[in-house]
Amino acid sequence: MSETTLTLDELERLVGEILRKAGLSPLHADALTRVIVAGERDACKSHGIYRIEGCLRTLKAGKVIADAQPELTRDGSAILRVDAKGGFSCAAFELGAPVLAEKARALGLAALVINDCTHFSALWPEIEALTDQGLAAMAMCPSYASVAPAGGSAPLLGTNPFAFGWPRRNADPYVFDFATSVAARGEIELHRRAGTRLPEGWAIDASGAPTTDPEAALAGAMLPFGGHKGSAISMMIELLAGVMIGDLTSPEALEALGTTTLVPAHGELILAFDPARFAQGRAGDPMARAETLFEALLGQGARLPSQRRFQARARARSEGIRLSADEMALLHRLRDLGLEAV
Amino acid sequence: MSETTLTLDELERLVGEILRKAGLSPLHADALTRVIVAGERDACKSHGIYRIEGCLRTLKAGKVIADAQPELTRDGSAILRVDAKGGFSCAAFELGAPVLAEKARALGLAALVINDCTHFSALWPEIEALTDQGLAAMAMCPSYASVAPAGGSAPLLGTNPFAFGWPRRNADPYVFDFATSVAARGEIELHRRAGTRLPEGWAIDASGAPTTDPEAALAGAMLPFGGHKGSAISMMIELLAGVMIGDLTSPEALEALGTTTLVPAHGELILAFDPARFAQGRAGDPMARAETLFEALLGQGARLPSQRRFQARARARSEGIRLSADEMALLHRLRDLGLEAV
Repeated sequence: MSETTLTLDELERLVGEILRKAGLSPLHADALTRVIVAGERDACKSHGIYRIEGCLRTLKAGKVIADAQPELTRDGSAILRVDAKGGFSCAAFELGAPVLAEKARALGLAALVINDCTHFSALWPEIEALTDQGLAAMAMCPSYASVAPAGGSAPLLGTNPFAFGWPRRNADPYVFDFATSVAARGEIELHRRAGTRLPEGWAIDASGAPTTDPEAALAGAMLPFGGHKGSAISMMIELLAGVMIGDLTSPEALEALGTTTLVPAHGELILAFDPARFAQGRAGDPMARAETLFEALLGQGARLPSQRRFQARARARSEGIRLSADEMALLHRLRDLGLEAV
Repeated sequence: MSETTLTLDELERLVGEILRKAGLSPLHADALTRVIVAGERDACKSHGIYRIEGCLRTLKAGKVIADAQPELTRDGSAILRVDAKGGFSCAAFELGAPVLAEKARALGLAALVINDCTHFSALWPEIEALTDQGLAAMAMCPSYASVAPAGGSAPLLGTNPFAFGWPRRNADPYVFDFATSVAARGEIELHRRAGTRLPEGWAIDASGAPTTDPEAALAGAMLPFGGHKGSAISMMIELLAGVMIGDLTSPEALEALGTTTLVPAHGELILAFDPARFAQGRAGDPMARAETLFEALLGQGARLPSQRRFQARARARSEGIRLSADEMALLHRLRDLGLEAV
């Protein structure tokens, strides 16, 4: 049998060891470990242990500060700001999240801006940190220019994730977190390796013409989901979570690093809403009313977003996480060789 | 020649006369006139004079209060609330907008909740009222249950519009405002009348199966734009701008009125962001940085959303608005017969 089953604790210890040995300060090693293990636990492989190598490569290239001390500033407004000081975003978010929750409860609505961070994680762990506090939340950030706007011919937008969460009392929260591109770059890469064509509408080639050839797509640009509507949402993310917060847009992030093989640096915008404050003085309990909607949706055979992720989580908690021989070998190599391995 | 050209002022006087004679208080007649004429001016026919009949039908059915006095409350939080008291939303928004702008400048971020309104207008006039103040804005609201969630089989979501705007110094703002359904119900109706098939992916029939037959689609449900991603965004709108603000969701709005031929009653959520506050202490002017993005987008042949609308506006200002003989006859009939005409 070539698979190994680890408990969540065992995986956490191993990933933590890798990251500390690579030189990350305990603050960052612990924060990164939490999101990487959460990805693996939720069978969200693209944000699990697969991400470790990219983080280490970025560290080795000197593009992220291993022991950055994120700094929180507040000015009495509804905006909280964490300057990540060039470190990974995860610790910056963990510093800001409790203060964001407190502020959202005080004002009904508040924003957390993260600046100057290196960003690789999914947004759902952040969304869940806020739904765990009984808050609704929205998060977004630019990435690298790799997506052409609808009607355009070249990369300009990032895959710009958009995420939202709604808290539920006795159930996993309603959470979505998706790229605003039709597909992830990794999916195109998989088609290239398999020698298969892409579905129509995923990409354009370097001349701006539609293509189903993965090689041509990688040399060209991906397309936004939902045509001009998804394209407009992606542009909104560049404006709000790039330009407005005074941080890099996707074309700037690509220019700053010059490669897509390292983890990009930019900022992030997270909004938190207190449903209790918004519903104040109105009839009906928002938590109960939301359940009516969810029941109607499930009752007609549709799925809640993240439903598969929560099922994988429950399974990982009871049965542990199964890793292939290759994955275990990679983890051991990273632990033993550190930055030499990447 | 069967067309009549009216100046914007002439059209405004005529629409105002119709609405006042139908019994709307000057407050509401004036506010409705502004958004209806703005729709016609911007060649956004679906939100122009075409909407008058629906408003009058709703008034005649006793489903909207003709002289409701909207009431603004603030509690020191970042949330402002206007109770529309069963009147049309437009006057409620006009009451809340300046206070929202002031609050957004004070706190960096603020929300305007409109409750108990009858809603028929596009969201872009509201977005533009805020971009005119140098603010970025986001707006959303439920409508009638007419869209099935991705993977579902029956109407649950509304066509739930989502709108966003970014202010520009010497240019029309960046504004988008779109339904989160693939197509509008009116477009399906047009296919039915023309006897043409619908494009794939627009709708399902009453059994939940995909259909390109407009009759079957009207008896079934429309589909969200962008598959599960658009569906999730539409659900977010039900949660934030229905459940969270203590107002009707799309299935509740349909149940409350029992028909889609009248204008629905529900609430609305508008967020305003002050870019100057968000960018504070950071390098670069957000207004100038946004222009760099817009130039890059236009430079590759893509269009900004609303570009056609702003072109139509400039044309209407210099050349007036051309209405067909049928449209003029309708306006005169509505003016002369009032509620008897609907």
